[in-house]
Amino acid sequence: MHIAITGAAGFLGHRLIQRLLERGELRGEPIRRLTLIDQLEAGAPEAAGVEIVSQARDITAPGAFDAMLDGRPDVIYHLAAVVSSAAEADLELGLAVNFDATRALLEGCRSRGLSATRLVMASSVAAYGGELPETLDDMTALQPQNSYGTQKAMCELLINDYSRRGLVDGLVLRLPTIVIRPGRPNAAASSFASSILREPLNGEEAICPVPTDLDLFVMSPRKVVEALVHGAEVPGEVLGSFRAFMLPGITVSVAEMLETLRELAGQAAVKRIRHEPDARIQAIVGSWPTRFNTRRADRLGFEGDRDFQEIVEAFLVDSGR
Amino acid sequence: MHIAITGAAGFLGHRLIQRLLERGELRGEPIRRLTLIDQLEAGAPEAAGVEIVSQARDITAPGAFDAMLDGRPDVIYHLAAVVSSAAEADLELGLAVNFDATRALLEGCRSRGLSATRLVMASSVAAYGGELPETLDDMTALQPQNSYGTQKAMCELLINDYSRRGLVDGLVLRLPTIVIRPGRPNAAASSFASSILREPLNGEEAICPVPTDLDLFVMSPRKVVEALVHGAEVPGEVLGSFRAFMLPGITVSVAEMLETLRELAGQAAVKRIRHEPDARIQAIVGSWPTRFNTRRADRLGFEGDRDFQEIVEAFLVDSGR
Ligand SMILES: NC(=O)c1ccc[n+]([C@@H]2O[C@H](COP(=O)([O-])OP(=O)(O)OC[C@H]3O[C@@H](n4cnc5c(N)ncnc54)[C@H](O)[C@@H]3O)[C@@H](O)[C@H]2O)c1
Ligand SMILES: NC(=O)c1ccc[n+]([C@@H]2O[C@H](COP(=O)([O-])OP(=O)(O)OC[C@H]3O[C@@H](n4cnc5c(N)ncnc54)[C@H](O)[C@@H]3O)[C@@H](O)[C@H]2O)c1
Repeated sequence: MHIAITGAAGFLGHRLIQRLLERGELRGEPIRRLTLIDQLEAGAPEAAGVEIVSQARDITAPGAFDAMLDGRPDVIYHLAAVVSSAAEADLELGLAVNFDATRALLEGCRSRGLSATRLVMASSVAAYGGELPETLDDMTALQPQNSYGTQKAMCELLINDYSRRGLVDGLVLRLPTIVIRPGRPNAAASSFASSILREPLNGEEAICPVPTDLDLFVMSPRKVVEALVHGAEVPGEVLGSFRAFMLPGITVSVAEMLETLRELAGQAAVKRIRHEPDARIQAIVGSWPTRFNTRRADRLGFEGDRDFQEIVEAFLVDSGR
Repeated sequence: MHIAITGAAGFLGHRLIQRLLERGELRGEPIRRLTLIDQLEAGAPEAAGVEIVSQARDITAPGAFDAMLDGRPDVIYHLAAVVSSAAEADLELGLAVNFDATRALLEGCRSRGLSATRLVMASSVAAYGGELPETLDDMTALQPQNSYGTQKAMCELLINDYSRRGLVDGLVLRLPTIVIRPGRPNAAASSFASSILREPLNGEEAICPVPTDLDLFVMSPRKVVEALVHGAEVPGEVLGSFRAFMLPGITVSVAEMLETLRELAGQAAVKRIRHEPDARIQAIVGSWPTRFNTRRADRLGFEGDRDFQEIVEAFLVDSGR
């Protein structure tokens, strides 16, 4: 089993590598080889019997995928991307990294006859937008209101078409908002969703910029990584007529998140949160869809978190407590 | 008013040119200039006071749009495309003509600051697919099951994003099946839908390859051309959050089409149709959606045919009877 990962130095790439090496197998076959691509050199732990090649390269450069694809990977995780704010700030950059590189990857698979290679890509809730219904489902239109979501939606279409033509065995998973992310607050509008749990659990202050009745559609890093693993294993024959769908996140209000924090860490933790409404963040986050009927993902065996308490408990375990 | 038309030598391009010259104005301004692009030299009738420049060029060639865009058109109709069967037979060709050329056109507008230029493109019912609901609406997902529809859907997303960013003033109209097309039967799966009216009205035989209870979602060439005209005139501010939607076709069964033929041309005309079921055509045409709630188009003032009788009567007038 040869697995290639683009964006391997990123948040999800890093965790996926750990999980794969921990499992040691994928699709019932021992993992023998990992090819890692990122513009930064991706690190990976030593693992007996696994040849790990880390290639530092810009995926927008001509031939960037050649060496990786010449190794005929059985599974490719395509995770390299520039995020929402960067794609909005620089249209060329977003199109080049998020769209053109995906197309080059598809063409690379096609020209090498890698029709049986499972290509798993991550799309986003940011691909939704416009006049959305109360509850979204697998047939809700993608009408993105940002360039990042536009580029992800274009990749979904192209991967679906290449798969339909039998040129590659593709699959695109739309990820919910991931909480709790480790690390520090960042510029992402959703940063507070991790921050209001993570900082108080670490004995630090956090700012909540949104009203507590705001809903979010979330998934833990663990379950996202499990979904990526399952995405390599679910057979192509059962994927149906369109190879992109939303993963089964859970809908949770900020109030419920804070209540869970209180239950697990006490009122003192909740008191570390300052409520400072931020109209800009409210406008962005408030426009994200929060209720999904994820029938296709459920039917295909993708699993979400049981409840928000499980998400916080997993974070505590993962961060060594 | 300077209007540019790509695919100007095609079926719709040709009719649109005629209609525009007949009107003499667009958006309340006299038409002074027409720039026509097609790989074939597009013809146009003489028209007093209108400078007509016809450029025979391949829109996939580098710089193909330069001369056209340097003339800073107020309105661009982007109609050049390779049709469904050609795009399915040749993925590169479809991507180059249907997608890359559209992207080059958008970039050409952007680099010249043509942010106020209205770009009207034609998309298709072929962009729909998958597990469709009984009645589709403006929020039904595009999950195309063919490369042509995939390429059209990608263009929709890109045009919407360039418009949202204020780089161009774009609009994409999804066209229903156009009947009655003049001319001869062709290889298109929908060819019969025109043929079973046109041929009997001309005193000739026709073949009906589908059961008479099959529904179609149709629009006359006249109304499609009127929709293209209206598409240049509807103000950008009212277009809403996604600049692509289905035009208001009408749903009609083959039986109703034949009944209309009987009413207008008698039982003798209907007798010229031989019923020869063709499983391949049934499978393709039977998968097309036939019921749409076209609320957005209706609200924006786009108009469909009143009924099928009006469609046939318009054909008779247009073909000089
Ligand atoms: N984390 C989330 O909440 C979330 C939500 C939805 C979708 N996604 C998607 O999941 C994927 C992984 O997300 P993540 O959170 O790990 O992101 P991340 O930003 O941590 O990782 C992305 C990686 O891509 C690399 N990269 C960017 N441009 C590159 C280039 N030109 N050449 C080579 N490498 C390049 C970066 O160096 C980075 O290591 C992305 O496709 C992202 O769009 C993430
Ligand atoms: N007619 C329909 O039923 C229908 C339905 C849905 C959508 N559409 C769309 O409407 C538009 C016009 O349709 P039409 O029926 O007039 O099609 P058509 O085939 O009659 O015209 C298309 C024109 O594009 C030109 N063209 C193709 N490739 C070119 C290239 N590389 N460079 C320059 N010119 C090129 C062709 O020469 C042709 O004149 C197309 O975008 C089509 O996809 C049509």
